[in-house]
Amino acid sequence: MFRTAELQRKLLKEDYRQQVPPLREELLMLQMELRKADFPVIVIFAGVDGAGKGETVNQLHEWLDSRWLITQAFGEPSDEERDRPEYWRFWLALPPRGRIGLFLSSWYSRPILDHVYGHTGPADFDEQLERIKAFEKTLADDGALILKFWMHLSKEAQNNRLRKLEKSPLLHWRISKRDWQHWEMYERFIAAAERTIMKTSTGQAPWKIVEGYDERYRSVAVAAAIRDAVRFRLDEASKVSASGGHGDANLRSKLAQPDAGGSPPVTILSRLDMGEALAKENYDASLKRYQAKLNQLQRTARERKISTILVFEGWDAAGKGGSIRRITAALDARDYRVIQIAAPTDEEAAHNYLWRFWRHIPRAGRVTIYDRSWYGRVLVERVEGFARTRDWQRAYAEINDFEAQLVERGIVLLKFWLHITPEEQLRRFKEREQITYKSWKLTEEDWRNRERWADYELAVNDMVEHTSTRQEPWTLIEANDKRYARIKVLRTLCERLETALGETADRTRPRAKGAKKSATKSFKG
Amino acid sequence: MFRTAELQRKLLKEDYRQQVPPLREELLMLQMELRKADFPVIVIFAGVDGAGKGETVNQLHEWLDSRWLITQAFGEPSDEERDRPEYWRFWLALPPRGRIGLFLSSWYSRPILDHVYGHTGPADFDEQLERIKAFEKTLADDGALILKFWMHLSKEAQNNRLRKLEKSPLLHWRISKRDWQHWEMYERFIAAAERTIMKTSTGQAPWKIVEGYDERYRSVAVAAAIRDAVRFRLDEASKVSASGGHGDANLRSKLAQPDAGGSPPVTILSRLDMGEALAKENYDASLKRYQAKLNQLQRTARERKISTILVFEGWDAAGKGGSIRRITAALDARDYRVIQIAAPTDEEAAHNYLWRFWRHIPRAGRVTIYDRSWYGRVLVERVEGFARTRDWQRAYAEINDFEAQLVERGIVLLKFWLHITPEEQLRRFKEREQITYKSWKLTEEDWRNRERWADYELAVNDMVEHTSTRQEPWTLIEANDKRYARIKVLRTLCERLETALGETADRTRPRAKGAKKSATKSFKG
Repeated sequence: MFRTAELQRKLLKEDYRQQVPPLREELLMLQMELRKADFPVIVIFAGVDGAGKGETVNQLHEWLDSRWLITQAFGEPSDEERDRPEYWRFWLALPPRGRIGLFLSSWYSRPILDHVYGHTGPADFDEQLERIKAFEKTLADDGALILKFWMHLSKEAQNNRLRKLEKSPLLHWRISKRDWQHWEMYERFIAAAERTIMKTSTGQAPWKIVEGYDERYRSVAVAAAIRDAVRFRLDEASKVSASGGHGDANLRSKLAQPDAGGSPPVTILSRLDMGEALAKENYDASLKRYQAKLNQLQRTARERKISTILVFEGWDAAGKGGSIRRITAALDARDYRVIQIAAPTDEEAAHNYLWRFWRHIPRAGRVTIYDRSWYGRVLVERVEGFARTRDWQRAYAEINDFEAQLVERGIVLLKFWLHITPEEQLRRFKEREQITYKSWKLTEEDWRNRERWADYELAVNDMVEHTSTRQEPWTLIEANDKRYARIKVLRTLCERLETALGETADRTRPRAKGAKKSATKSFKG
Repeated sequence: MFRTAELQRKLLKEDYRQQVPPLREELLMLQMELRKADFPVIVIFAGVDGAGKGETVNQLHEWLDSRWLITQAFGEPSDEERDRPEYWRFWLALPPRGRIGLFLSSWYSRPILDHVYGHTGPADFDEQLERIKAFEKTLADDGALILKFWMHLSKEAQNNRLRKLEKSPLLHWRISKRDWQHWEMYERFIAAAERTIMKTSTGQAPWKIVEGYDERYRSVAVAAAIRDAVRFRLDEASKVSASGGHGDANLRSKLAQPDAGGSPPVTILSRLDMGEALAKENYDASLKRYQAKLNQLQRTARERKISTILVFEGWDAAGKGGSIRRITAALDARDYRVIQIAAPTDEEAAHNYLWRFWRHIPRAGRVTIYDRSWYGRVLVERVEGFARTRDWQRAYAEINDFEAQLVERGIVLLKFWLHITPEEQLRRFKEREQITYKSWKLTEEDWRNRERWADYELAVNDMVEHTSTRQEPWTLIEANDKRYARIKVLRTLCERLETALGETADRTRPRAKGAKKSATKSFKG
């Protein structure tokens, strides 16, 4: 694989001097165009020690306008980072649209090092590479331009390079014992590199192997590759917009007719027993009991550093806010945060739609409650046509991957759909109109959404079908009776926490994959 | 001071039931209005253990719309937080305009506890309270509405409360040995509380003492106080906007005539020797030498966890970018970040202007380079009239306070003003027009700014006068000759780093106040 990168390619000084000025000019011009484009550029540097990763990044900083460049390097995770899933810090470090992010020691470092040092076997290594592939796919599907450079040196060239650096009075500090250790392990690194490149070089995020032997050659090679890729993408984008977009205009009408018969579709929601109710006395006693229990469970979870994420979705006026308040009333205000998902800020809008949810992942032992969530992608964005068909369709896989990372990190994840019938919603809307301090909750949009009930019901059905997994099940709540709904939410939460705390009673490590299914009665149970 | 808060005030159940619905309604309505207002609300809870701080915050979450509420509590700082000045985490936690932030265990906790436990004497305690005052003043001057509630219990009432909690099967977990320890130290807490309230209760950020004896009473008292304060502020704001704003319309003409004589003002800049230059051979040798030195110094700084912050200000085309690149070329790309200050994002615009700079404070051992900075407040914002007179005038003190916190944390701070003459600027503008890949750097705005040279010069003079302190001096760079300028920047940086590393050679603690003045030849030296 690396044979062609051991040719000792060189760029003569004269050629370099001739090539660099126009290259620089093109890069600066491209960067200006890019600032107005709606995609970010992610450039990853990996490779053999001494092959010039850091120097190349420095060179790019000199050639490009550093104002629109963001360089990221990741060392040992901080305690805030250790509290979250591994990819949390990578997500937060992604460049916004219109900018270029340069990544040194990125998400590839840990998997490769762990494998080379023998901490992970081939199966675990492959699994980590799969995670990388899914991550990059999520970004690329959203439009990110991903370029990956593998900087290569032959074993001999690396030896020469390390020796040369060691002798330099200015640069000898760069060489540590570790570098020589790694040189001894050259073959293992190369084997791991080959596997990595083989498994993760995709059409969307290809690796380019660059010979690191000559400084001038590798700088120009990398810069020219970036120039060509950005140029190509910008030209492509202008072609697409000239031809009138992606033809999703028929989305609404298509959705409105899920089957030819004209009868309302049979969905998972139509199977719920909407007559479920709870008498006032039972409610008061249950509320007290479950709140006390929840309080105790959360204290234990806090001590054991187990975080909880709650997702609330449901029809307008289904009682999400009321259910959330019955939960928060049992918690210490220091422990939880309610995130209401409204329109994204411009920083959020400049990133992949999942970025704003990654942002709020709680520290160990805390509770984050999302009032509406990432599922907006496959609900409102799908139904209202805000997301293109291909975007919301692939969101199921992206969401499953996101949630799997939460669960693997030991986070207890619960997802509630609060269901009411259209008749009950109408009754509640009318009630809200009467109560002054509730009337503001009712907007024109709420009435409009009502008209698209069937579309939403279908979207909910698909959502549950695609994203209710063994590890991250949906809990459907029959919410025509508020008391019943609140108690079911509280009970489910208590049961899940109990199970999680039982499971981890004698463990401090994150929950392993394949942990037993929660005892909670989810929609599948 | 607390006598009036030991009256065992109670709110009868009937009264409570009568008062709460209209109160809630008003609060929700206010919150809706507030969302469109241009100020944040900061509510601080402090006081005696068991006086209901957490319960009150929970109650507010139930009464208000949690979507626009942000609750913050601060425990032991994380390692990321320890790497920055103490107030970093408080700054980042501030609510944006239009929202309410509820703070439990805020910036008051640590100073009070340290003093009660005898870790700090009266002088240090007072100094910490002064810092708080300055912090709150900065926020209030910018429009933040600050409310501070001291929840009080008499010693006897606290005893009863702790006993009662201990006996409750649901709540006994809340009481730890520490609570009883604190109860034993009641008098010391009260003394510290009195001092705190006396020193930090200002017209802009007053304390309100609330008796915590009765749950209904304290909840309604706090909620009503919030309602009244927000109501008052909203009414005030609408009055101001009705009367036509702050009358800064004449700002430009006033500034343009700094003195009656019509002759150009004598400023600090007019005293610079603009003939300074460096021959090419000298430059090449010096550049190499200082870059090698800088590289070594930064490696040591990294090891010793000493961060550096560089601020670059200067005329358009004065060569800020070129100087920065000569620095970054000597650094490892992993160690530094260049922050180009352009228009704020909407998240940034929703906070105090210093917030976006706090955001980028580097972790220990790293370098952050600000290409333009917080000084925009007293330069472009002043000259162009973007900031009101009173806003930019108080910015000097705010900036000094901000920088003092950086230096106290052990961060090496350098501030460069790159100075060129108007003639040299014109020459460079014309040159830029000729070179394609530089022409984009030249905008209409650059030409406009040129016309206001005298205003800017005056603003620079005032800036240096107000913010060049012994600890945080400005270095004025004669930059008509690019080579001279770059070397002076590099040399100054190396000298400052050397001094800082020498000073901290045998210390791991942050640099103390009163550290010796840097050996650098600053404008004052």
